[in-house]
Amino acid sequence: MSDLTFQNNVPDPLLSGKELPTFKFELEKSTGKVMGNSFGKEATVEQLPISKGIAGVSMQLEPGVMRELHWHATAAEWAFVLEGRARTTVINPAGQTETNDFEPGDVWYFPRGHAHVLECLGNEPTHFILIFDNGYFSEFGTFSISDWIGHAPTALLAKNFSLAESAFDGFPKDEVYFARGAVPPEPIPENLQGPRISPPETHKFRMLAGAPHAIFKGGREWRVDSTRFPISTTVTGVILELEPGALRELHWHPNADEWQYVIDGDLTVTMFGSHGRFRTEQLHAGDVGYIPQGFGHSIENVGGKPSRILIGFNTGNYQAIDLSAWIAGNPVDILATNFGKPASLFEKFPRRDVFISPNQ
Amino acid sequence: MSDLTFQNNVPDPLLSGKELPTFKFELEKSTGKVMGNSFGKEATVEQLPISKGIAGVSMQLEPGVMRELHWHATAAEWAFVLEGRARTTVINPAGQTETNDFEPGDVWYFPRGHAHVLECLGNEPTHFILIFDNGYFSEFGTFSISDWIGHAPTALLAKNFSLAESAFDGFPKDEVYFARGAVPPEPIPENLQGPRISPPETHKFRMLAGAPHAIFKGGREWRVDSTRFPISTTVTGVILELEPGALRELHWHPNADEWQYVIDGDLTVTMFGSHGRFRTEQLHAGDVGYIPQGFGHSIENVGGKPSRILIGFNTGNYQAIDLSAWIAGNPVDILATNFGKPASLFEKFPRRDVFISPNQ
Amino acid sequence: MSDLTFQNNVPDPLLSGKELPTFKFELEKSTGKVMGNSFGKEATVEQLPISKGIAGVSMQLEPGVMRELHWHATAAEWAFVLEGRARTTVINPAGQTETNDFEPGDVWYFPRGHAHVLECLGNEPTHFILIFDNGYFSEFGTFSISDWIGHAPTALLAKNFSLAESAFDGFPKDEVYFARGAVPPEPIPENLQGPRISPPETHKFRMLAGAPHAIFKGGREWRVDSTRFPISTTVTGVILELEPGALRELHWHPNADEWQYVIDGDLTVTMFGSHGRFRTEQLHAGDVGYIPQGFGHSIENVGGKPSRILIGFNTGNYQAIDLSAWIAGNPVDILATNFGKPASLFEKFPRRDVFISPNQ
Repeated sequence: MSDLTFQNNVPDPLLSGKELPTFKFELEKSTGKVMGNSFGKEATVEQLPISKGIAGVSMQLEPGVMRELHWHATAAEWAFVLEGRARTTVINPAGQTETNDFEPGDVWYFPRGHAHVLECLGNEPTHFILIFDNGYFSEFGTFSISDWIGHAPTALLAKNFSLAESAFDGFPKDEVYFARGAVPPEPIPENLQGPRISPPETHKFRMLAGAPHAIFKGGREWRVDSTRFPISTTVTGVILELEPGALRELHWHPNADEWQYVIDGDLTVTMFGSHGRFRTEQLHAGDVGYIPQGFGHSIENVGGKPSRILIGFNTGNYQAIDLSAWIAGNPVDILATNFGKPASLFEKFPRRDVFISPNQ
Repeated sequence: MSDLTFQNNVPDPLLSGKELPTFKFELEKSTGKVMGNSFGKEATVEQLPISKGIAGVSMQLEPGVMRELHWHATAAEWAFVLEGRARTTVINPAGQTETNDFEPGDVWYFPRGHAHVLECLGNEPTHFILIFDNGYFSEFGTFSISDWIGHAPTALLAKNFSLAESAFDGFPKDEVYFARGAVPPEPIPENLQGPRISPPETHKFRMLAGAPHAIFKGGREWRVDSTRFPISTTVTGVILELEPGALRELHWHPNADEWQYVIDGDLTVTMFGSHGRFRTEQLHAGDVGYIPQGFGHSIENVGGKPSRILIGFNTGNYQAIDLSAWIAGNPVDILATNFGKPASLFEKFPRRDVFISPNQ
Repeated sequence: MSDLTFQNNVPDPLLSGKELPTFKFELEKSTGKVMGNSFGKEATVEQLPISKGIAGVSMQLEPGVMRELHWHATAAEWAFVLEGRARTTVINPAGQTETNDFEPGDVWYFPRGHAHVLECLGNEPTHFILIFDNGYFSEFGTFSISDWIGHAPTALLAKNFSLAESAFDGFPKDEVYFARGAVPPEPIPENLQGPRISPPETHKFRMLAGAPHAIFKGGREWRVDSTRFPISTTVTGVILELEPGALRELHWHPNADEWQYVIDGDLTVTMFGSHGRFRTEQLHAGDVGYIPQGFGHSIENVGGKPSRILIGFNTGNYQAIDLSAWIAGNPVDILATNFGKPASLFEKFPRRDVFISPNQ
């Protein structure tokens, strides 16, 4: 399901040219959909053609505002909360619902086609980044409850709910998208149907509340894949922190595309493709980067302060191969022949995985 | 295998226009392939362009007629017997064969590429509906034994079977498709190879011989997915009965397309797409309907007598979300804000899944 | 993952015409990439358009020559050693490496995206056939370490490895592909990183060192699928030996494409498609043949000496249905009606699977 084994069989013309295409989009500088201080800005194949495997949205909700009840026919949704507090309610095909409250550093995941609602909680705006396991994700695949009820015949609705037709007087006729109302009550109120039957797998994971899985002199990384967050079968998420001058070393992902969102900092990202194709982009806070499955790449903090990057992969089974580990995994005679250099040179190379290299 | 997670990543242009395309085809009014009172009428993307995920065939065989030995390279076959009795013989890649006799209400399933034959049993015609897990299914993907043997060099056949070339004198030179002969003997005779080694999973399920899985005031439903019929990994089948005026409520399927065949009755089927697109079709006995994965829809019996509908899904793992259950799975403050209506209104809504709503 | 259930839903125009296209390519008569007596010749959709599911390469390495460190973003690699001795080193995403030495008849498998190097071992050239589970495999999907290091900024490399920039003086600026150096030491030397942590599944299988799985009067067959070689989840390999005049009988594969390479001998291969389409090709040593999933076919040794054929399938789960077993799996009344011949004729047909029929 989350395996791309056959998905990338037919070459993408965009990746088969003489030059690599751009892999950067200034997401936060785009406009998107706006209502007051609430907004949704998106990066899909429309905005960033290389990003066929993953789309992303930056969304802010003001107090009392919700992103209305809806579902996506063509993508699962993974989210990371940057600021403020949010509440989500989601239903699965077994009719089980879950309502969860989120703080910065928390993550949610909703499988493809499962309906949900996103609310701002409390009196401060909330800002979160949504990642979708399909770069073609767009509003054509997004179905909103107000749009459905607004276009269905009233007689049909009345029969559906065993209510008088007048019950639907004054319902919105078109899609609401952002709805404004009272700040949601706390703690979480009961559902209309009464006590919840919890789903077998929770939709919430507190990523930054736990310890990083990897700590280096130059930075650290939190990572959540389906082994730690079982419902997230199609997305792995990462928070990467790099100290000034530090480098997430040259590496590639055998089974997934990579989607990057710069939370803080100034970065140089490189991408390597076959036939000597090499491209560098400068990414700053609010920018999005994208590396297709199998392409070599690196991320370097070239600014004067620590950098934090949110990274999403379209697989629940995280895989990566680092250049330093690859080199160290060979007898030196292979390296000597491959590069036409004395074997003694390679004795100076790192003997284990570098992962993050500090400023030097 | 039966999961569409990645299949629907790239948007279908047919579903991305300003209006939803038709999702109705009058199958039994079409002509198809005819031999005497035997016929095969098909609904593929040729006849019904929206139906990319599922194709269907209505087939009738007279006494003594068979649909000859053949296999489909590009689709599995699921069938429901409407009238008369049928016999099937199927072989799997382990060389195990199974011969089964079927009555109305029985179901069979043959995996993609497994060869089989369909016979009319007894002295009355048999009529059945075939469902294929690929809307592009067509005769270009159907390989018949007479066509193969008719075109292979006789010397090759003689060597293949260690027979004289003269053994193939008078064999058909072209595809037979429908073959006419004696009414098959009963009980089932032995195979040429002697006693059968039964396959580990049977290809037959007696759907209507069991109780419905769901009974409501307005109707009832039988359903068979891979949990009850393990070999059927790529198709779930349903028989839905609606009393006059009853409604299978607004719902959608997160992981499958839906193919409908009206056995009896007069129906109004609605389909909802994003961007306020809404379409209604009137379906009558012998008509086919189709709802793509993720699209909202409902089925209402608008005639004066009970209606029976055969429904197939291209997944062995049935999933659906009903609008009433979705609404009931939220705290009322969410509904109030979403629709801009008082919370008290939603206290009147159903507190559990409606599924089928009766005439009112 | 290795299941084609949905891959072949949309018909291939190449297979939907009035005539079947050619399924033969004279691989060893092509030129390919050459360095001295080392070469790599490829058969992809460029050379053989029908071969969309599987590509192949014939590669020879002289003593002291290696195919440099690289990975394939879009294909797994399965190999069979024809002549000489080879050494491979491969790394997986867990950072585990394996170095193995191979002799004629041995097989390797590297999953999609896992980096590796191929070396000639000893003082004789080695010749092997590579099979890729993607007919679109090409150099655009092949990433070489020299190409990456040659195009990355030296400052980036220095930081990556904590070395002075001067350490990269004189490194190749372009892709090396074939590298020439000393004959590799024996036994296998230690890695730069020290003792290896072995991967959980080995990448090596000694196919011809074991007994054939099937022995007939007219020939024999060795077969290795994922039940015997667990890492090979996407490829099954076969060595088929046919005595003069012997026939691998008419059959098809429900779930995989077939790629053939003639090691020795003169063959007639037939292919059968729906609508009475039938095509025959003459294959000789060094030629490649291809049969799409679901198409009927046979292989006959029409030369005066034994023939040996290497066959690869793009599935780890081997499946086939033979015409003789299919016929024998039916009651004779079905055969009588299907072909319009007396039942007594079919009593003379084989009562079990023929598989290989000897010269007669």
